[in-house]
Amino acid sequence: MPVFREHGGHSGCERIMEIIQIKNNTLEEIAAALSAAESILFFPHHSMDGDTLGSSVALCRALRTKGKLSFVIIEDEIPDMISFLDCDCCTDSLKIVDKPDLCVCVDCGELSRLNRRRELFESGRTKMCIDHHISTTPFLEWNYIDPAAAATAEIAYEIITILGLEIDKDISEAIYTGIVTDTGLFQYSNTTKKTHLITAGLYDCGLNSSETAIKIYQSVSREKMILEANIISTIELFAEGKVAIAYMTQEMLNNSGAKPDDTDGVVERLRGIKGVEIAALVRERRDGRIKVSLRSKQYANVAAFSEPRGGGGHIRAAGYTADSTVDEVKTSLAVELEGLLKRSSVSDAGYKAADEC
Amino acid sequence: MPVFREHGGHSGCERIMEIIQIKNNTLEEIAAALSAAESILFFPHHSMDGDTLGSSVALCRALRTKGKLSFVIIEDEIPDMISFLDCDCCTDSLKIVDKPDLCVCVDCGELSRLNRRRELFESGRTKMCIDHHISTTPFLEWNYIDPAAAATAEIAYEIITILGLEIDKDISEAIYTGIVTDTGLFQYSNTTKKTHLITAGLYDCGLNSSETAIKIYQSVSREKMILEANIISTIELFAEGKVAIAYMTQEMLNNSGAKPDDTDGVVERLRGIKGVEIAALVRERRDGRIKVSLRSKQYANVAAFSEPRGGGGHIRAAGYTADSTVDEVKTSLAVELEGLLKRSSVSDAGYKAADEC
Repeated sequence: MPVFREHGGHSGCERIMEIIQIKNNTLEEIAAALSAAESILFFPHHSMDGDTLGSSVALCRALRTKGKLSFVIIEDEIPDMISFLDCDCCTDSLKIVDKPDLCVCVDCGELSRLNRRRELFESGRTKMCIDHHISTTPFLEWNYIDPAAAATAEIAYEIITILGLEIDKDISEAIYTGIVTDTGLFQYSNTTKKTHLITAGLYDCGLNSSETAIKIYQSVSREKMILEANIISTIELFAEGKVAIAYMTQEMLNNSGAKPDDTDGVVERLRGIKGVEIAALVRERRDGRIKVSLRSKQYANVAAFSEPRGGGGHIRAAGYTADSTVDEVKTSLAVELEGLLKRSSVSDAGYKAADEC
Repeated sequence: MPVFREHGGHSGCERIMEIIQIKNNTLEEIAAALSAAESILFFPHHSMDGDTLGSSVALCRALRTKGKLSFVIIEDEIPDMISFLDCDCCTDSLKIVDKPDLCVCVDCGELSRLNRRRELFESGRTKMCIDHHISTTPFLEWNYIDPAAAATAEIAYEIITILGLEIDKDISEAIYTGIVTDTGLFQYSNTTKKTHLITAGLYDCGLNSSETAIKIYQSVSREKMILEANIISTIELFAEGKVAIAYMTQEMLNNSGAKPDDTDGVVERLRGIKGVEIAALVRERRDGRIKVSLRSKQYANVAAFSEPRGGGGHIRAAGYTADSTVDEVKTSLAVELEGLLKRSSVSDAGYKAADEC
């Protein structure tokens, strides 16, 4: 059933009230709408990653070269590994532009992920969504949602190309960051021939890929590295080595001096153990509840395991929260995950990336 | 000064003794020489990595489709992470073919790296070198050495393409393995536009890149992971956080159950700490001597540091062996590396990959 609503047209900055069908636009229509606006704000999603910020910065920088008044509106701190993307495009000022012609949510299909920036977003004369998440459906006046894109940065590259704008070294770096962070350095199954062709094109724009990779991947805090090592030291294997379980207590976190989100990536490392099909990281949260993160390698459906426990996620990456203790959760997980393995079959799914975005 | 020597010609399998200049051939000449031979043996270098084995397997498989009698001659165990490349091409039999028409050393510029396979190599009617190491100079009858290639696998791809042979899924996987292992998943500075264009082409040949990446990077032994964690736990920072030093004793190695070469990659992880310019891993060897591995991130020349200590290597990746104790080496390193930092300048080199192959 198509959704109809009032929307802002794209003829210049005039708001033309008309009733049209909400749909996925073509890249050319998206490019034309960006071209028609004079003031454009880009909104990465909350808890920024390399793709949401890289795509936003790339589009903002490119449109500025066309004389547009453009900013990237952020509200949370930029994570260390992508802090180099910060530039005079990024601002947390909610009054930087009054009544912008166009507000664009980038790599984000829900306005709830804009948190306290939502009012500014809504103040735009027209609104646009540029995204690649499969869960996103057209919901704004302008939408370009392509789940076949490995990263929103691929879409940003195409839009800039259609607009005929120059991709300079900084823009190439922002696009590259979006691509490598969302594909795990071209490892995940969202990576396609097109991903590599776009990346190849960035070298003509001045990209220094190794310089950028050093910035992204060689900026781990000592505290995070120590915490990871301590968690890895707790690994136990079950089910003939097919299940790996490790844990983190609040005491381990406090002793390391690391931040709670410094456990990012650890459960993926556990999954990297030879023979392991399911990896579980059991973390004690500050409120005493237990967060269980699960990853599977080839065939086990950890989303189906997590859902009846009040959680959810993707087939190869899911989790849930339990009211229990680390020890109790570990003990029951060892049994329950062995049960999941027995119900699973290698033929279930073939290889799938656990980290598809 | 050109080098002249007797060499075997390429007109069929006849050994034509003639005096010619040893030179780097064109890709077309290399393809023609492979085409002219009926029996061809490929020799990866000792201590196999993904590039030497992937390139050898790719060429061997492709030439078999043209009816050639072809094998990959190996002598050491294939490392876990690339063991999936093993196929009916690989053999450790030194009598598999009597007097082969052509013996090819792959990703290898010194016959000393063929160890006990050297005699078989020498028995070839003609010999060829296909390599991308900058240190390799033409030394056989046929040579294709291209230091601009990110991996020898890039050269293998080009040769197979010139020969007009089909690249099937298995061959695409072997080439992909060579490329990703030698570029650190496209991170190191040897990665070029061409690297990505070749990889893009592999998708048309059936490559499932995520399936292959899982095979390569998600097959770490539990013992290696625990050893790594234990080494990481010993990290100490010096020189305002610019120098990271960690160590491994024989006791740590024995307790972990890991293999001595399971420390591979750890010093690169140390370098990944934010702010660290030089990372050092101090390892006690079984014979009691101390092996020091050094990596730098952006500007320090660790080769120049290692050479007067009897070692050597690349600017960003070098090492040496000392007759001392772990504690003594650690203590002196902390002082000496701070001195190296003071003598170095950020302007020395800009970004360079420490892992250039």
